[in-house]
Amino acid sequence: MHTTESLRLYGYWRSSSTWRVRIALAIKGLPVQHCPVHLLQDGGQQHLPAHLARNPQAQVPVLEHQGRWLSQSLAICEFLDSLSPSPRLLPAEPWQAAQVRSLAQVIACDIQPLQNLSVLNMVDQWAVGTGRSRWAVHWISRGLKALEQRLSQDRSMLDSAHQPGLFELCLIPQLFNARRFNIDLGAYPQLCAIEHTCLQQPAFATTRPELQPEAEAP
Amino acid sequence: MHTTESLRLYGYWRSSSTWRVRIALAIKGLPVQHCPVHLLQDGGQQHLPAHLARNPQAQVPVLEHQGRWLSQSLAICEFLDSLSPSPRLLPAEPWQAAQVRSLAQVIACDIQPLQNLSVLNMVDQWAVGTGRSRWAVHWISRGLKALEQRLSQDRSMLDSAHQPGLFELCLIPQLFNARRFNIDLGAYPQLCAIEHTCLQQPAFATTRPELQPEAEAP
Repeated sequence: MHTTESLRLYGYWRSSSTWRVRIALAIKGLPVQHCPVHLLQDGGQQHLPAHLARNPQAQVPVLEHQGRWLSQSLAICEFLDSLSPSPRLLPAEPWQAAQVRSLAQVIACDIQPLQNLSVLNMVDQWAVGTGRSRWAVHWISRGLKALEQRLSQDRSMLDSAHQPGLFELCLIPQLFNARRFNIDLGAYPQLCAIEHTCLQQPAFATTRPELQPEAEAP
Repeated sequence: MHTTESLRLYGYWRSSSTWRVRIALAIKGLPVQHCPVHLLQDGGQQHLPAHLARNPQAQVPVLEHQGRWLSQSLAICEFLDSLSPSPRLLPAEPWQAAQVRSLAQVIACDIQPLQNLSVLNMVDQWAVGTGRSRWAVHWISRGLKALEQRLSQDRSMLDSAHQPGLFELCLIPQLFNARRFNIDLGAYPQLCAIEHTCLQQPAFATTRPELQPEAEAP
């Protein structure tokens, strides 16, 4: 199954979940047509009928493959792993694959969803004072601390022979978000070491948000 | 790879993420030793050193397999699918598997983490008035609405020949949580139809929270 014609990625340049999929596509060298959905223009283009037909959750990213749509970034990355099995995003050995999925899900389930745009807008509505930033810093820091401890228990992700995959394509965009909230990453030396290694690889370096054609000046 | 000896599940009877894994184990008929971690006693047993060694995130569930630990419920379920491939939790066909993962992740990434205990406690600290309940109702309703629309677009999950798997083991516990917040489920007839079918199967019915040995009276 190698039909990669007509892959389209509906996404937003600064969305960390979209960046995950850009990295996965780049690791595999799959050609894709990027279709921007601007989360802040027109009251949020993700709420327009054309995008709701792709994803009733009104979120990005969405992958289009042979005219069909798939949402949720980790599901998209695992599908790309089936479509184009080499290089792999997950180890072949089941227990190792499970640990990589688990690390990726710490970010995809327990960090990113708590600091995405719609949640922060709700925190703004309800919380007192500087709620938005404090909220994001709390949940990002809590998750990164747990990840740093996980890596101390199992150092296989730090092995020089290790190839970046599903965990790293979640981690690097999440560290980008952490910096947007001015979080000091000095407390996470192992995570920063992984970031340093990954950003030397084209799949990570060339897909950075600020390099996307529709990126705006900060 | 069929070594299922010494499977232990560290969990909490009312945790919806723990219930997901109980259902997966029951679908596959895998024997397991249940090890309760009480999230409300002793200041939260998930914060005790013994549990932090299993999972630095201080969360349940954690699966112990051959003396090693695995956290994050979806990663655990996919590992159980490798350990004991029949009956499958995911379809063999990659696009169908991707759609099931996507539906499961709507719940595991975008509903449950926003209404879990630690987030609701933070909402209590920061929000005004009846924040906790309003917050949970908002995010659960938003997610269930999107799922109901997804099922209208793709009715394969409602086919009478369809076997419950990764999506349903997330959905049924999430509907249980929705009722705890007094959400009217009348707006989600397709989700309720799936629930009705699943709760007639022993893997769902016998693993209900209130049937766990350590369950407390409401």
